[in-house]
Amino acid sequence: MVHPPDRPRGGDFARQCSERNEDTHARRHLRKPTNRGANPGAPVVAIHRESHYASLHLYHFIAPPGPLISPMTYCLAIALDEGLVFCSDSRTNAGPDRVSTYSKMHRFSVPYDRSLVLLSAGNLATSQAVVAQIQRDLEGDDKGRFNLLKAKYVSEVAEYVGELSVREQAKYSGDNAPGAGFNAGATFILGGQVKGQPQELYLVYPEGNHITASEQHPYLQIGETKYGKPILDRIIRPDTPAETAMRCALVSMDSTVRSNATVGPPIECLFYRADSLQPQSRYFKLEEHHPYLARLRKAWDDNIRQAFDNLPTLSEVFDAEAGRH
Amino acid sequence: MVHPPDRPRGGDFARQCSERNEDTHARRHLRKPTNRGANPGAPVVAIHRESHYASLHLYHFIAPPGPLISPMTYCLAIALDEGLVFCSDSRTNAGPDRVSTYSKMHRFSVPYDRSLVLLSAGNLATSQAVVAQIQRDLEGDDKGRFNLLKAKYVSEVAEYVGELSVREQAKYSGDNAPGAGFNAGATFILGGQVKGQPQELYLVYPEGNHITASEQHPYLQIGETKYGKPILDRIIRPDTPAETAMRCALVSMDSTVRSNATVGPPIECLFYRADSLQPQSRYFKLEEHHPYLARLRKAWDDNIRQAFDNLPTLSEVFDAEAGRH
Repeated sequence: MVHPPDRPRGGDFARQCSERNEDTHARRHLRKPTNRGANPGAPVVAIHRESHYASLHLYHFIAPPGPLISPMTYCLAIALDEGLVFCSDSRTNAGPDRVSTYSKMHRFSVPYDRSLVLLSAGNLATSQAVVAQIQRDLEGDDKGRFNLLKAKYVSEVAEYVGELSVREQAKYSGDNAPGAGFNAGATFILGGQVKGQPQELYLVYPEGNHITASEQHPYLQIGETKYGKPILDRIIRPDTPAETAMRCALVSMDSTVRSNATVGPPIECLFYRADSLQPQSRYFKLEEHHPYLARLRKAWDDNIRQAFDNLPTLSEVFDAEAGRH
Repeated sequence: MVHPPDRPRGGDFARQCSERNEDTHARRHLRKPTNRGANPGAPVVAIHRESHYASLHLYHFIAPPGPLISPMTYCLAIALDEGLVFCSDSRTNAGPDRVSTYSKMHRFSVPYDRSLVLLSAGNLATSQAVVAQIQRDLEGDDKGRFNLLKAKYVSEVAEYVGELSVREQAKYSGDNAPGAGFNAGATFILGGQVKGQPQELYLVYPEGNHITASEQHPYLQIGETKYGKPILDRIIRPDTPAETAMRCALVSMDSTVRSNATVGPPIECLFYRADSLQPQSRYFKLEEHHPYLARLRKAWDDNIRQAFDNLPTLSEVFDAEAGRH
């Protein structure tokens, strides 16, 4: 496990980094930002060099070891003409008495050169091992090894994430493996842009292969996907404005939270504007009792009831049925 | 396989029986109602005696033999103060080139004495074998055997359906069974009323045990349940009027049809009024291009978009985020 270097105290990235770890789990273990490095149980990793052109920012969260499983995560990403929208919940569970909060959104960026966002669902140990290996490859001295800085296309990174994931899962899949029998599978959404290329969005399967979004199907989902799918089908098109798409992602997420107790806030939402090559154009994290989330829920519930009440009644069907008798 | 006796030409029940078999599969094989008995490949079974008090009506459809599987059926039932609502789709599939249409709603009733409705999902061969055995037990000479006429409670019938289902599945579950390895499981919803008892509603699991609906959760679903669940959660309460509940069931069904190509019309919907002890108070079947279904879809799509457009925008979240920078 890699321990974090000193983190810069000021600037946008330090603030983002601190925002990213304001979840309940982080707060419980880490009272003050300056204590983070001293707590090996929940370290925060951030690589930061001073030059904007050469700096690489890695914001993620390393959990206690063990085969924690989060099959009921829900993450989605949307490919818009304007850019990419990412949204993820933060709940994991390995049984009803082991429900925890972990960020599932990992951001990697070198401003003006490349910006990548990785969302993960499935086995938490596997997805965290993949993120940790991405970071070790970036820090390592083995010049021959692939890393994020060498990728010319986002699809190369998708291939690389698939390989890391399959390698990690293989440790548990043989008949003689220590954990044989449990599901070590993890699924990823990877999106972003490398300078000189268009933005790209991929879903990486547990088997390591990947698919991309399309004009006709401009979004990708992983985890508990069904409850939140109908609203995406109705609203999302490539020319949907970013604010509308982020709002739709929140509604989709909230329908899932309502129907499945193992998906839950904080909800993270990020918008990457195409060709900006910045870590993000918009980012927010909504805790369970955030006033906007409460207002959104109430309004959606009221509006859905009204939408239902305004449907044509069945009287015409009943009349036709009565006419036949 | 039991061949149908002569069916009466007139009366409400004959009409219902003919309505029930107006699906595409039936039409293809059975041009005229009078030819039905002559086609052993797709016979219609109807037991009918003249006395209203003693007649038993068994309306269902027997398919060609074989392990056809319909894992992606969607059926639901709602327990209202007013009575019970049942709704089912009619598509089955055993692979993309074997999509067929079968009714999944089976009605059994002795007017003024008992009225039962059975919905099925899962392996089509298993669910049809269960229905056929229910009928054989009714016709059989073995006076010691349980049958629907002997049940004092609907829960007894639920127990009986579970036993028949487990026995049928066991034929394929042993290591030496001919079809070992495929999933012969079937799930049922059973609802109705026996004279002198309140109405009851049950879900029978493939393992043979059953659960009932509750005040807090007044509906039961089987098959592809997730897409259609959110609207039920928002609208359905025990005191919801029957028309509203039937409309909600149709919306729930239509969301599922839209998201899963293996769930499809005709959609059957039935309302049993509590204490009526009649086969049904309302029944209709909507084909794919029924004008009401088309209007409902259009109106729901428009209303959902409007419901979404009227949600509070994210500007307050963006402003707060901007204020922090």
